[in-house]
Amino acid sequence: MLVVMDINAKQELIDAVVETAENKGYKAMPIPGGDRVSIGILYNKGSVDKSHFLGFEGVKEVIPVTKPYKQVSREFKNENTIIKVGDIQIGGDEITIIAGPCAIESEKQAMDIALSVKEAGATLFRGGAYKPRSSPYSFQGMGIGGLKILSKVREETGLPVVSEVIDLEVFDAVEDYVDVLQIGTRNMQNFSLLKRAGKAKKPVILKRGMAATIEEWLMAAEYIMENGNPDIILCERGVRTFVNHSRNTLDISAIPVVQKESHLPIITDPSHAAGVRDQVLPLSLASVAAETDGLMIEVHNKPEEALCDGAQSLLPEQFDMLCKKVRKMKELCRE
Amino acid sequence: MLVVMDINAKQELIDAVVETAENKGYKAMPIPGGDRVSIGILYNKGSVDKSHFLGFEGVKEVIPVTKPYKQVSREFKNENTIIKVGDIQIGGDEITIIAGPCAIESEKQAMDIALSVKEAGATLFRGGAYKPRSSPYSFQGMGIGGLKILSKVREETGLPVVSEVIDLEVFDAVEDYVDVLQIGTRNMQNFSLLKRAGKAKKPVILKRGMAATIEEWLMAAEYIMENGNPDIILCERGVRTFVNHSRNTLDISAIPVVQKESHLPIITDPSHAAGVRDQVLPLSLASVAAETDGLMIEVHNKPEEALCDGAQSLLPEQFDMLCKKVRKMKELCRE
Amino acid sequence: MLVVMDINAKQELIDAVVETAENKGYKAMPIPGGDRVSIGILYNKGSVDKSHFLGFEGVKEVIPVTKPYKQVSREFKNENTIIKVGDIQIGGDEITIIAGPCAIESEKQAMDIALSVKEAGATLFRGGAYKPRSSPYSFQGMGIGGLKILSKVREETGLPVVSEVIDLEVFDAVEDYVDVLQIGTRNMQNFSLLKRAGKAKKPVILKRGMAATIEEWLMAAEYIMENGNPDIILCERGVRTFVNHSRNTLDISAIPVVQKESHLPIITDPSHAAGVRDQVLPLSLASVAAETDGLMIEVHNKPEEALCDGAQSLLPEQFDMLCKKVRKMKELCRE
Amino acid sequence: MLVVMDINAKQELIDAVVETAENKGYKAMPIPGGDRVSIGILYNKGSVDKSHFLGFEGVKEVIPVTKPYKQVSREFKNENTIIKVGDIQIGGDEITIIAGPCAIESEKQAMDIALSVKEAGATLFRGGAYKPRSSPYSFQGMGIGGLKILSKVREETGLPVVSEVIDLEVFDAVEDYVDVLQIGTRNMQNFSLLKRAGKAKKPVILKRGMAATIEEWLMAAEYIMENGNPDIILCERGVRTFVNHSRNTLDISAIPVVQKESHLPIITDPSHAAGVRDQVLPLSLASVAAETDGLMIEVHNKPEEALCDGAQSLLPEQFDMLCKKVRKMKELCRE
Repeated sequence: MLVVMDINAKQELIDAVVETAENKGYKAMPIPGGDRVSIGILYNKGSVDKSHFLGFEGVKEVIPVTKPYKQVSREFKNENTIIKVGDIQIGGDEITIIAGPCAIESEKQAMDIALSVKEAGATLFRGGAYKPRSSPYSFQGMGIGGLKILSKVREETGLPVVSEVIDLEVFDAVEDYVDVLQIGTRNMQNFSLLKRAGKAKKPVILKRGMAATIEEWLMAAEYIMENGNPDIILCERGVRTFVNHSRNTLDISAIPVVQKESHLPIITDPSHAAGVRDQVLPLSLASVAAETDGLMIEVHNKPEEALCDGAQSLLPEQFDMLCKKVRKMKELCRE
Repeated sequence: MLVVMDINAKQELIDAVVETAENKGYKAMPIPGGDRVSIGILYNKGSVDKSHFLGFEGVKEVIPVTKPYKQVSREFKNENTIIKVGDIQIGGDEITIIAGPCAIESEKQAMDIALSVKEAGATLFRGGAYKPRSSPYSFQGMGIGGLKILSKVREETGLPVVSEVIDLEVFDAVEDYVDVLQIGTRNMQNFSLLKRAGKAKKPVILKRGMAATIEEWLMAAEYIMENGNPDIILCERGVRTFVNHSRNTLDISAIPVVQKESHLPIITDPSHAAGVRDQVLPLSLASVAAETDGLMIEVHNKPEEALCDGAQSLLPEQFDMLCKKVRKMKELCRE
Repeated sequence: MLVVMDINAKQELIDAVVETAENKGYKAMPIPGGDRVSIGILYNKGSVDKSHFLGFEGVKEVIPVTKPYKQVSREFKNENTIIKVGDIQIGGDEITIIAGPCAIESEKQAMDIALSVKEAGATLFRGGAYKPRSSPYSFQGMGIGGLKILSKVREETGLPVVSEVIDLEVFDAVEDYVDVLQIGTRNMQNFSLLKRAGKAKKPVILKRGMAATIEEWLMAAEYIMENGNPDIILCERGVRTFVNHSRNTLDISAIPVVQKESHLPIITDPSHAAGVRDQVLPLSLASVAAETDGLMIEVHNKPEEALCDGAQSLLPEQFDMLCKKVRKMKELCRE
Repeated sequence: MLVVMDINAKQELIDAVVETAENKGYKAMPIPGGDRVSIGILYNKGSVDKSHFLGFEGVKEVIPVTKPYKQVSREFKNENTIIKVGDIQIGGDEITIIAGPCAIESEKQAMDIALSVKEAGATLFRGGAYKPRSSPYSFQGMGIGGLKILSKVREETGLPVVSEVIDLEVFDAVEDYVDVLQIGTRNMQNFSLLKRAGKAKKPVILKRGMAATIEEWLMAAEYIMENGNPDIILCERGVRTFVNHSRNTLDISAIPVVQKESHLPIITDPSHAAGVRDQVLPLSLASVAAETDGLMIEVHNKPEEALCDGAQSLLPEQFDMLCKKVRKMKELCRE
């Protein structure tokens, strides 16, 4: 951390910062810079709270240098983390395709979609049993009934299943029934949920918050890892910006940046970024070209009757074409 | 809702939209517009899901008209909701000032600050017992011990106390000990928590999510109200933008817009918007000038030793001056 | 346009809106909706100014329906516009690669880079002679000297050259010397410059403003086209968001949306979106996968000595690898 | 500037950075920090280009410390700049109120509005003769005819007049006719215009760009000052964010931050931030409470017939009430 002093800060103010830092157990090193003095706060373990120096008399600015994340960082562990779900590896050489409807609506709906996405090449099936909906009047998911359907889908198709955990109360049930847990964008900083996910025995997909920096996102992953669960899959799903032609703005550069900063795999959810069907294919291919480790795609066989997010769901035949293109592009990237 | 058709959409595509709408129980009215036809979807109760029409062949765009919120809207209930906490009224003629430290750190700290903010004119005391922190390595709050201290503070000072609920597990305890519950910005769309807050017997301060539109915020309040609790205080605390000279950007126009759209009171939290002490006074006064119903301000007697958010905490003497200015300005506004 | 009335707006207020609309020569159609009345404003040529109805007593909201752009829209002209620069076609089957340094610094620098980017596969050479710099103390470009160097580069390499026009004063000179004119992101709504570009005899690359919606961007193109120049190439270069790990956030979904709304070609500038070298390759490939019509890439042979934007410039060998990958991916996309 | 090295950067890479810095004439000081080394770049005059170090092997990050602005900074000149326009002082004890229509439409319109705003208490009259409009089909202003009307308004009312300069071609004419020049938000980084404004003999109102940081805004002012004109009035007019209930988001904290960083006066334009009439009063009062030096307000006597931005224009009687409230609040702030 660098404490930048006012241009005419007197020596005693500089000394006060140095003393405070050393009282807190850090080493402080004044750096004369010409016009003004800065003070380096050194040998700190983990990042230092800006608050300890901001607002001191004579302090103009406090600039953090150390990143606050540790265990999730590539500096902590250099090789890629590969997450195994049955025979599937997420973060390895193959691209992982997770597909299914926004919400489980009935056994028939789930099974029909699961069979078609499997046929097209998806390796995991997704479907919400508990749905976080912005309106209390919208369909909130089938709950335990939905989990049981997911279980049957796995039995019949062999596809591992992914579903969202929305709170501590339903966590155990979801953990029992599914293979991969998902934490949604609105819960990225639900720290109680993150701590519980850290105790889970199943891998966790952690979606990026709608307005989260990569640092905040990795810190959310750090919560899970610090609580004992190393199997975390990050999922970029678009961020909120002024742009109004898509529901959110897919932040493609998050892929290389996360891969540089962290050893965890990162997948992309183009469906939620787009919010509308005809942007899903280009955003998917763009993600693959930028070397995402996987895609999570919403598919519905009757989108106009879907109880949730029909507008962004691909039809099975569209998904089939997407899979074909994705596979070819992945091959090309591997060359 | 207005379904806008492509410029050369054939009659059969128009008919298909009309039929679908009528099958769903709405009335559909084609509106010829010169170049293209639009179809009004009418007599719907509540807002209609765009997904039901977006992605239809021949549909260019779907434009929502009806707002999705009901019970929280001023169209539903015209007079202002005034919330009573003991003798205090929030949303009435007086401005409510809620003050205290970010986190309860010790009985002495809490009591010292409480006495000084009461002296200055605060009418409620705030302090976190359970803290949502972006790092798992940061102080997470004193928990139940903090709640007990809050309880003592109320006993000794007579100030009602406000504290945050962060999950379902601690909800009962917080509800037992405090007078007003707070739901934080990161939990604004934690729908399980909102539903539980709807069952609570105490008023709830609902902070705006960092990237939430007013519509989403009011829908979060709708969750609480629909579940049985009408005592909701909205709290504007700044939104995330590209601006980097404050932690968040205080959205002043949210005050008049919320007051127009909803009957609920709205207060402002300038401390979290600013993130730094010297912006707190101007943002507070600006909020009062824009007719906020209250302020929530962080105060600490030793900010450089605070375990949380010291940089944005006012010193007691700064808070005292703020209260004097706020009261004068409120008087002026009332004239 | 749809004028949405207050829930309890009286008939006379509705009549007043209708009358005003008809006085302005529109047709107005009241649409009863259950709770409230909306009024469709119909048979307008071009979009109607919201201001004419917003703020009327009894009016709750005014919702535009018609898009304001005409000549640039795909509804106006359905087939893709292909722009010819010598033998090169922009917007056709081949992907166009434009490369070169941010600024022309010397003849040797320009020529060395031009030869290497040509070798790698670039088909146009770019280089700034007049540079818009955020600091008055930064290098402002070589001016006319830079243009002359560009001219020599074209002579020796056969590559058509692209350079930025920054104001009316230098416009004629730039137009004389170069093959394609560029209007920068900060000038996207410099309407005087756009009008002048409309009189130009050379194609214009129009960069998207840092905070421009697609509608505003297409309206800027409309200015150029309305003034007589149909040869416009749109260039997505990232938008300003809260995201801080890249200089701007490349808005990939702008590619399919522009291609749907307009007949004009769209290229991508990943260098300015990234702001840092190691994001340029993934953003380039992502753009190609999303079917961009071209790329504009900054290349410098000695980035650490560049007078402008060295950090985002690729080295010639990196650019060479990029071109190879881009071509393979383009081939794949065409299959 | 601080160059942060990778955790395992070898000594030779550190030496390379030091050498490069010293070759460029800076002093470089390696700072061992525990895990990694950072290198302070010292004794630089003005800010150093990040590009010179970013992308070096072994360099993780480059963190700027020095602000790039000089002459406009409060560190350069400590006392407030007060700008005189006739008898009026902008940036002094009195709050400056500038009012008038978006565009001059006729002599009668201008004169009627001018008389009423003068009566209400405005001290300068504004009105556009050259209008930057997002559509080429919108009214572009009366041009020279508008300037002549402004001139008559001044003659008859005694109010100094403000109007916008949109390009180099019309600059001389506007400078001749008006008392204060305005540079609009879309031209904030039109550097040719800024340089010309630096040669002008009249004060310049410089509006903040829609997506400009304060640093970029002050650098735009630096252009004007460096070119010879010290009379610059900054104008906050809202920034573009995801928020959709106002046209832009007024950034209130820009007022105290600009006043801390710069000696220049700052005024506020609530009309353009709001985009809609009923937010103008609260945003105005909020600005005054936050100690803005002035307000620029759009007023029209027949907003439903205005050729530009009628929806955000106050009626004369609304403006009258606003002035009364503003004056009272200003008095209070001065106490």
